[in-house]
This record gives sequence, C-alpha cells and structure tokens, in this order.
Amino acid sequence: MSRRTVVVGGVAGGMSAATRLRRLDEQREIVVLERGEHVSFAACGLPYHVGGTIPERETLLLQTPEQLRERFALDVRTRHEVIEIDRERREIHVRDMRTDERYVERYDELVLATGASPVRPTLPGGERAHVLRDLDDLDQIMAALEGRPRTAVVVGGGFVGLELAENLFAAGLKVTLVEAGEHVLPPLDRELAVLVAEHLEAHGVTVRTGMTATSLGPDDVLLEGHRDGLHVEERVPGELVVLAVGVRPESGLARAAGLELDDRGGVLVDAQQRTSDPAIFAVGDAATKRDAVTGEPVLVPLAQTANRHGRLVADVIAGREVRSRPVLGTAVVGVLGLTAAAVGWSEERLRAAGRPVRAIHTHPLHHTGFYPGAQTIALKLLVDPRTDEILGAQGVGRDGVDKRIDVIATAMRAGLRASELADLELAYAPQYGAAKDPVVMLGMIADNLAAGLTETVQWHELDAELAAGATLVDVRGADEVAAEPLPGAMHLPLDELRARHTQIPAGRVVVSCAAGQRGHTAARLLRELGYEDVANLDGGFRTWSAGQRSLRPALVEVTAGG
Amino acid sequence: MSRRTVVVGGVAGGMSAATRLRRLDEQREIVVLERGEHVSFAACGLPYHVGGTIPERETLLLQTPEQLRERFALDVRTRHEVIEIDRERREIHVRDMRTDERYVERYDELVLATGASPVRPTLPGGERAHVLRDLDDLDQIMAALEGRPRTAVVVGGGFVGLELAENLFAAGLKVTLVEAGEHVLPPLDRELAVLVAEHLEAHGVTVRTGMTATSLGPDDVLLEGHRDGLHVEERVPGELVVLAVGVRPESGLARAAGLELDDRGGVLVDAQQRTSDPAIFAVGDAATKRDAVTGEPVLVPLAQTANRHGRLVADVIAGREVRSRPVLGTAVVGVLGLTAAAVGWSEERLRAAGRPVRAIHTHPLHHTGFYPGAQTIALKLLVDPRTDEILGAQGVGRDGVDKRIDVIATAMRAGLRASELADLELAYAPQYGAAKDPVVMLGMIADNLAAGLTETVQWHELDAELAAGATLVDVRGADEVAAEPLPGAMHLPLDELRARHTQIPAGRVVVSCAAGQRGHTAARLLRELGYEDVANLDGGFRTWSAGQRSLRPALVEVTAGG
Repeated sequence: MSRRTVVVGGVAGGMSAATRLRRLDEQREIVVLERGEHVSFAACGLPYHVGGTIPERETLLLQTPEQLRERFALDVRTRHEVIEIDRERREIHVRDMRTDERYVERYDELVLATGASPVRPTLPGGERAHVLRDLDDLDQIMAALEGRPRTAVVVGGGFVGLELAENLFAAGLKVTLVEAGEHVLPPLDRELAVLVAEHLEAHGVTVRTGMTATSLGPDDVLLEGHRDGLHVEERVPGELVVLAVGVRPESGLARAAGLELDDRGGVLVDAQQRTSDPAIFAVGDAATKRDAVTGEPVLVPLAQTANRHGRLVADVIAGREVRSRPVLGTAVVGVLGLTAAAVGWSEERLRAAGRPVRAIHTHPLHHTGFYPGAQTIALKLLVDPRTDEILGAQGVGRDGVDKRIDVIATAMRAGLRASELADLELAYAPQYGAAKDPVVMLGMIADNLAAGLTETVQWHELDAELAAGATLVDVRGADEVAAEPLPGAMHLPLDELRARHTQIPAGRVVVSCAAGQRGHTAARLLRELGYEDVANLDGGFRTWSAGQRSLRPALVEVTAGG
Repeated sequence: MSRRTVVVGGVAGGMSAATRLRRLDEQREIVVLERGEHVSFAACGLPYHVGGTIPERETLLLQTPEQLRERFALDVRTRHEVIEIDRERREIHVRDMRTDERYVERYDELVLATGASPVRPTLPGGERAHVLRDLDDLDQIMAALEGRPRTAVVVGGGFVGLELAENLFAAGLKVTLVEAGEHVLPPLDRELAVLVAEHLEAHGVTVRTGMTATSLGPDDVLLEGHRDGLHVEERVPGELVVLAVGVRPESGLARAAGLELDDRGGVLVDAQQRTSDPAIFAVGDAATKRDAVTGEPVLVPLAQTANRHGRLVADVIAGREVRSRPVLGTAVVGVLGLTAAAVGWSEERLRAAGRPVRAIHTHPLHHTGFYPGAQTIALKLLVDPRTDEILGAQGVGRDGVDKRIDVIATAMRAGLRASELADLELAYAPQYGAAKDPVVMLGMIADNLAAGLTETVQWHELDAELAAGATLVDVRGADEVAAEPLPGAMHLPLDELRARHTQIPAGRVVVSCAAGQRGHTAARLLRELGYEDVANLDGGFRTWSAGQRSLRPALVEVTAGG
C-alpha cells in the first residue's frame, strides 16, 4: 500500500504542499480536499475585481482541479468537507457537499491548511454586511454593486480594509472607512498611519478612527465612540457595508481532534509545522507561526507565509531536514497612489510589551532631488538600543517604499544590526535612489545613536522635555519657520548657530529642523561647542507635526451626547 | 596649533569626509582644495541635462563653497590645484589656478579624493570627441548641441554610455552606440545584456558590438571589427561623438609622492582607507577598494562607495574604530524605459577567473500576473556551488528590477546563502510582487540545486550536451513549440509526460520549457520515474533564445574586406 498524504484546504498553503510533495515523490497518493468551489484562487486579488482593476473574474482562478490532476496527479476534490479526524486510526471522515455522501479516508500524513474565516461581529442589522474572503463573498459584493449603491462603509482600517476602501471608491461609491483603534493600519505607528488617513481624506474618502460600528440601518451605519471623554454617535451613509475586522483561524476540526491550539485558536506547530500529533501538520492562516521578535507563537495570516510553509511541510514529509524561520510579518498596501508597508514590530507594540526601543524617523526623497519627480517617503526604523538589533520598520510614500521595506526585511532576516544598514551597497542611479540611499541613511543615524554621537527625542516626548525645562531651538530657515512654526521654540538658523549659540540658555537643549538632518548637524555642533546635554528632535518638524495631527481624531460631523 | 586636515578634491568622497569630520570635531582646521570650478555637483545627473530631463543646469550644483563655509566652517578653495606632496614635512604645494600663485599648506592628515578622469583613446580626428565627467564637459556638449547635430556616436556601451545614448536620443539625435566588447553592459552576462541592446535597437538606436572606433571623420566615425573571421569596416554618422570608455584614477599626485598604487593606478588603501603613508588617506574613484568576491584590490568608481568611504575616513581621523567593507559594485542603469542592474560578479567574469559557478536564470513577472501591467524580468543569480555563497546577480526588465537587485545586494552584504533567499519575507500585495517573490523563487531553485533535487544545464552548454548524445525534451505546449521551436528537441508536453515518457530513449535527458519552471517539474517527474540522468535547461527557451541572439553580432550595414 503506497503512502498517502491528505491535505485539507486547497488554496495557498495546502496547494503549495501538495504540488511540492508531488515533485518530491511520484509514488505517494496525494488527496486534496477543499470545502469551497475553487482551489488556488487569487485571494489577494479579490478587492481589485470590486474596483474593476481586475476586470475579469476568471483572472482570479489560477488553477483548476483538472489541471492539477493532469500536471501533478493530485486527487483534488472540491466541495468536500472534512468533518472529523480520527487520529487513532489515522482516518478522516469526509462529506461530499454536493451529494451529502459521507466516507472515510486513510492518511499517513494529514496537512491542515484550513485557513481562516472573517470575524463577523454581532451587530443589529449586521446580516446585510458583506465580508470578502473568497469568491462567494466576491460574487455577493458584485451582485450588490449591480443595485448601484451610492455609499459604502468599510468597517476595519487594516490592510484589507484599505484595499476595500480604495476599490469601492474606484467603483464610484462615496466611502466611509471606520477603524475602532486610534489610527488606521494598526501595524504602523500613528504618526505614519496618519499620512494614509490624510491621503484617503484628500481623495474624498471619509475616515473615522476611534469609532465602532454598533448597528446597521437599512442604508446607514451607526458609529459610536468617545471624543474628549464624551460619548459621541454618528450616522454615516452605507448602502453597502463590508466588514474587514480581521480573521480567525479555521481550527474547529483541529480542536475537535484534540490538537493543541493557542489562546487565539491557532493550531500550534513546531518548526517543522508539526502539530501536537506527529502525523498531522498545519500551515497557513490556521496555524501559528513563531514571531521573529519574541519567538512566541503568533498568528500572521499572509499568503507568502502560507506558501512557504506549505513547501516546507512537503519537504518534511519527504524526509528533508528543514525548519521554518520565525516570521517578520512583512506587509504592504497600496491605496489611491500611496504605498504603506511595514515589517516587524511597531514602536507602539514594542512599548506596550515593555521592550526598550530606539525609534528613527526620516523623510528622504525616494530618488535624488535633482532628478525630476522625487517624492518624499516617511520612513521609520525600530531598534533595540541594547543590541542594535532591528526590530521593525515602516514606510509611507508614493514610490520606492516597498523596496526600502524589502531591503530592511532582508537585513532583519539575515540578522544585520541597524548600524550595518549604513554599509549596504544599493543600486544607485538618479532615477532609482540616492548615493546615500534612504536605508543607508537610517543605518548612519543608527550608527550615530549607537556610538553615542547624538541623542534624539521622539515627537511624543517633546512636551515632557519642555515641561522639564529644556530649551527648544528651531534651526530651520526663517521662511520655513514662518510657514510652519514649531510652538515653544527659539529660532536660530543652523548657519548662524556658530555665531549666535551663546543666546541659548544653560541646561538641556533640544534642537529641531525640518526632517532631522540639519538638527543632527546642529546637535553635533553644540556638543562640540561644550553643551553637554543636547538632543535632536527625531524626524524634525515633519515627524512632530504628523504625530500632532495623529492625536486629533477626525471631526465627527453629527454628534450627540449619550 | 590646532590639528589640520586637508582634503584634495571636493565632490563625493572628499566632501563627505570634510562635512562628517566637521560634525565630529569643531576645533579642527579643515581645508578642501578643488581643482575644478565647483564642489559637490551632481556628477550622476550630468547625462540627464543633455537629454533635457533635468532642464536647469543649476539643479546639478548641490552646494557652494560659501554654503559649506557657513554651515560646516570648511575652508573650501576651488580652482586650487595641489602640485606636490611633501610627505617628510607633511606639507602640500598648492597652485591657485586663477592667479598662478603658489603656496604651501601644512597638514596633519591628508585625504586624497582626486577622483578619476575619462579615458581618451588616441584616435585620428579624436580631438573633436567629447567626454562627460564634469560641468565643463557638460557645457561643451551643450554648446555642441546648439549647432543642431543630427547624428551622434557614443563610444562605450557601459553604464555611462547607455545613459548618454538614452539622452542624446531624447535630445532628438540619431544615435549609434559602439561597444568594443562582445556585448553592451560588461558587468552583465551576454544573454541579459542582449535584452538591453535589443531594446535600444527597437527604439531606433543603432548598436554595434565587437566594433572599435578607429578614427573620426568630420561628421562620421570609422568602426572596425571582425565578423566570421573577416575584418570589417563601417562608417557610422556622428556629427557629435562622445567617448564613454571608462575612467582611470587621478593618482598622479600620489604616484609622484611615492605612495603605493595598484597596477591600474589606483591608490592602495587598507580597510581604514589609509595609504602606504599613515598620514595620508584616499577615497573615491582614485582609491582601490577590496572586492567582495576575492578580497583583492579593485577599482569601483561609484558615487555611493565614495560617499561611504569619505564618511569612514572622517571617523578614522576622529579616532573611531571603524573599517570599510569589501565592495559588491552594485549598479543600475535606466535606458528608454528599461532597467538593468547588477551586483557582484558575472558568470563570464567568474568563469574567466576559473571560479566554480552555478548560474540560475528566471523570467518572473515583476508582480502577480492577475494584476494588470505585469512585466517580465530576466533575473540571474550566480552561486558558488561548493558553499552556496551568492557571488552575483543581474536583472533586466521594465519594473521592479532595482528592488530585486537591492534585496540580493543586502543578502550578499549580510552573508546569506543562496538557498536562504527562499526564506525572505518580502512585502507582498498584488501590485508590488508575488506571494513567491522573484527573489524567493531564485532561493527555492538554489535550494533545489544545493540539495541535489535537480540539475541544470546552461544555455551555452546545450550544444555540447546534444553532441554527447543527450535527448532534449521540450515540455511546453504545442502552440508554444509551434511559435518558437527549440531545435533538436522532441516534444512531450508536461501534462502528457506521465503517460508518454516511455517514448524517451535511454540515457541522458535534458528537459526544457519556456522559462524553467515546468522543466523543473518535468525533471523531477522523470527522476521519480526512474530516469537517472536528467537535467533541466536553466531558464528554459527564453534564456536559451536570448543567449543565441547574443551570439549574433549586430549586422554591419556597410562592410568591406580588409
């Protein structure tokens, strides 16, 4: 009797496992059971069919069961549901959803790639709300769009919520994006996320943060939240409502079989994707990963991780000695011409976990300023001040953001220290970057900080500095200061600092410029001139200003005390 | 008497050293002597003023001596030439080029950032040829364009030659690009470089490889070369002629002072940029670097390396314990909408040096195929088969090439093995990449090769394989084979291979598909079916075809035996 591997779930992780296993072992029986109608569809492309960017639905169907049978001799059965795992006998109970016929399949190895399902909060009127996770969901949204709704509410301001907002906007709807947290894009810090929210608002998408959708009317949604300690309510128009408030692992089958789960319901696996039963593996959104910062189990529902771990499971089953790596959670989203990307942990998450953190903000141009079309990127690096380890990075801008985050993600995977980013040799020509690339600049600043050559103050620490008596010195030019004054600062332009520094009172000094670079020169100069307690406002006015704007929740147009 | 550092040369490396040193030490005297009219100009931007992309010449002037004096208290003297170094007395002899006055300056540390000058082959009529290295050169070319020449010849098909060809084309001239080597872009291998040459030709730029400009007429250039063992000549129209055949270190001053040079004239330095005289440092195009592959001294005239080493010299002079890293030579060029980039060594260079090399070719889409606008990239990775070390990479395509080369350059700097590229977590959304990013795919192929799961044959090895009796099996679909047949191959589509493989004769088998992926599946299948000697044509038909096209030198329109 030949060995037999059964894969439950035929999209990213499951199908990667099945096809890789076939390439490694022609003799094995490989059965793929998929509850849905389709295998291997482009889940990440679904929002773009809503907006019309991907005009043909068929484009989203990557491979059919027939193609997989022909090429990989896979026994793919769609609309087949696994209803029970009998670990003792190594059997699964399957239901053919088309005929309701039930049968039993033997396995030598079982791979659970059951994915995740969208979280659906229970809301009055919520039955009319859509989600977007598979092609059935997509078809329902497309059918709803046939009714020509004029307004939409997207509940959830994460990556998928932003993609939905962009695409419903592109489909011609007036869109409101609602995020219960304090800012959109929770993996980013607020002073970067605010740039995305402002971009959406500038295009006419209404953004509500710190507000929760609490009930759905026939064509609107009631939002509730707090402003200045007062309960506020707002009704926003939403003939179409889509929920994008996250996913939860589809681990009911694993739970019923007594496999170990984490407290969020993820199937716990080791570095070979093995569950607590050595004959059962789990990959993809249903399985836990190991977090790169802490090593702890974590849920990271991303397609690339599912694919990677699917391949790895096949290797393990075929007898290769391989181990998965901890995950960084690198992610990117495009929204109305803006790109936001992140890797690792945010400052907010690090501080909440009590981890020491050094933040570095820069606002470089995505390519040299002398070549036309240069766009500013907001870049942030998070560093462990004890070890110079890179803990995370974030970027928001029009162009070149994904490249910089990919470079940092590669550095993190390889264990480069933050200061070592200064030594990267990245491809430079005027239209691609800079002789000192933005990532190299981050590394130089990290080096200066690690070496004690400079000290920085974060935007959210400035008030406390001023309260403690620090003197704030704005070293920008007079025209910049006039256009965008920094409250509480005395003005001493950098180029006059050598001559006029004696005007600065004794004691702690914080210098500030537009984006941090002139401030660094000023801080170094003052130190060299004998000032012993000098710090530079990290990221300068730009970061400080974005931070301030991020603290002002969007105005609520219709409010009512409650 | 305060310490005094003299910097000779005020562009990339020299000015980085001077400004960094000032930030580290306010007390030191810092003198910058620059022979030219300008300091800190955008050398990399010069070609783009020729084509009009950078319309204003002033844009190229980054900093003036006055600005540098104000901000960094630098004593910057333009049009001052250093004519002699007296190492014994630690003095230099300087000539003010405006007044011809001569004077002596003392130094504690001397930094040579004298750059490189364009190679000017001695050619009959060559005095009318231009070069483009500084603003004087630029002004001369711009003046020549005032005379409305209709035709131009660019001699030299490297990075700068391609930028010149693009920009003269953009300025409305009929351009011929001449490269003496067998293909344009010598840092790339021929089967990638040919894609750039074809792109130029498709836009109407004439490309001549394997031809040397031997004399200049009043409005044309005589090219000579060999075709099929015959001497051929061709006259190409060139009212304007620009030479871009490389640079040589400006090391006359160092040589006269008895500093050690390498055999190409580069000033030899250690990892602290120190020359053979411990009080004299050298950075930038005049100085040698250490090659990342061999550790040997090498000349890599790139702005980013100059800047990086300038910063490092300042750190060393200020007493920091820092060391430069070997250089990878990462470079990129944009030409008429195409991007070509490279890092490390090419296959040709590795083979010429007798290094074992494993080449991996792929032709991925720059982002997912289901999102509109996906463009193919030709990507190549060079690996040491003994250690899995990454030795180099190259890419050519419309979009996303610089990103992938930057990621690989980062992996190389960090010492990641080729197989470990499979574990990179790069930012994925449909418009930015793929769930399996092109770089990750390279890593997976490297892993398959390192693990012995597959074996590949290079495009240039196929003839020898066939001559030795291997059976070539084309596993593409019938329509693909009909459109672009692979000579000498039997046709067995991948999806029929399981059923029809017995048609393959015994012995060595080489399989081939369009780009290598189906071939891999076919090779694995045949191995699993018991075929013991199977290899996959690396990069498939696309790589093979590009390789073949690269072997056909461009037709010479007017030929004459000689």
